[in-house]
Amino acid sequence: MAPEKLAFVGGTGPEGLGLAVRFAAAGHAVVIGSRSEERAQEAAETVRAKVPRAQVEGRLNDEAVREGEIVLVTIPFAGHRDTLKALAPAIGAKIVIDVVSPLAFGGRQIKALAVPEGSAAQQAQALLPQAAVVAAFHHLDAGSLMDLEERLEADVLVCGDHPQAKLRTMALAEQIAGVRALDGGPLANSRYLEEFTALLLSLNKNYRAHTALRIVGIARASGPRRGGKPAQR
Amino acid sequence: MAPEKLAFVGGTGPEGLGLAVRFAAAGHAVVIGSRSEERAQEAAETVRAKVPRAQVEGRLNDEAVREGEIVLVTIPFAGHRDTLKALAPAIGAKIVIDVVSPLAFGGRQIKALAVPEGSAAQQAQALLPQAAVVAAFHHLDAGSLMDLEERLEADVLVCGDHPQAKLRTMALAEQIAGVRALDGGPLANSRYLEEFTALLLSLNKNYRAHTALRIVGIARASGPRRGGKPAQR
Repeated sequence: MAPEKLAFVGGTGPEGLGLAVRFAAAGHAVVIGSRSEERAQEAAETVRAKVPRAQVEGRLNDEAVREGEIVLVTIPFAGHRDTLKALAPAIGAKIVIDVVSPLAFGGRQIKALAVPEGSAAQQAQALLPQAAVVAAFHHLDAGSLMDLEERLEADVLVCGDHPQAKLRTMALAEQIAGVRALDGGPLANSRYLEEFTALLLSLNKNYRAHTALRIVGIARASGPRRGGKPAQR
Repeated sequence: MAPEKLAFVGGTGPEGLGLAVRFAAAGHAVVIGSRSEERAQEAAETVRAKVPRAQVEGRLNDEAVREGEIVLVTIPFAGHRDTLKALAPAIGAKIVIDVVSPLAFGGRQIKALAVPEGSAAQQAQALLPQAAVVAAFHHLDAGSLMDLEERLEADVLVCGDHPQAKLRTMALAEQIAGVRALDGGPLANSRYLEEFTALLLSLNKNYRAHTALRIVGIARASGPRRGGKPAQR
């Protein structure tokens, strides 16, 4: 696929950093966004240390978002609503890939939180009505992403209501070695993806493992059925 | 494992029948329960046609439940509450494996239904306070179960708060060739399992497939960590 310019909102956390490393290694330009420009630049250095030829910069979130063609949201759920509300003008009609799982880690159990809109991704779409929001990448282990020596073995389920945004996201996912992208249906299905993260993290804890997901029974590598009207993105 | 006597509440539907066939083939005694004794006996004949040496009978639900040591609940969610409420005296303190996913099939999308107790399995536990309720087997394709020639490739995630009931269920699951059982944590996690069924069915529709789930990254075949106090069942 053609190189994309990817902006990370909250790219200094482990999941954002891990994805940034993989996409930089695949030849995409990466802008790491943060609330702190200093931490953004530190994160960019971390990416460059892993991928010396990386095209990577650190910026404040709103500058990052303005520069990117595709925006990846990799912040904790606690800041999801306020951050996206503030960034809405800068994001405009871009493709937004929401990676956030609304989880509570209190007590001994990891629990999925109820979201009034249905899911974090649906909340993002409600806050960013012009954008093409897609949900993906929830189940990739951050540590495995950071280790470029490790070939992943995982399916990335992609949910969204904008067919072209979904296709671009699926193509992007398959730039990570060992990842197969699958069309997970409409954005309303993103809740099942986000909540399943609680179960995978629970398995990680029980088995001291770094789990990922494979869907058995789908022969072809990827390619969703393209129902409905052709869309702009 | 030692042969178990398994009772199916609603064993005439495809999922119940498929599990009954597999467990009968593995040498367990099976009692198919139904609201109609006639349909129960027809279903028992279907099992016997697939497994000529099967120990299988058809009974009314409450008789089936009285005969079984382990009760599998394989009814549509619409009848879940009323059926279990009526069967509570017959079920008593048995192990109950709830296979039900609360789903709505209206319109073009398959959607998970909200359950006041959290999940179908948690509803079962609330209705059957003496029983040891476990959630499992949601993601096994009924058609694949019915075809004894087919070796499954699937993980069965088992959730529950009764360690011994969970272990017996995991052992039972691994009687199906190609199935690996994993400890999915407490019964509260069953919601993520049940809801994920909506996503798998959505994939089945999109890809015209019969999907199942594999968890990548867990090396050992099974065996949960045995935390907490020893339990009776």
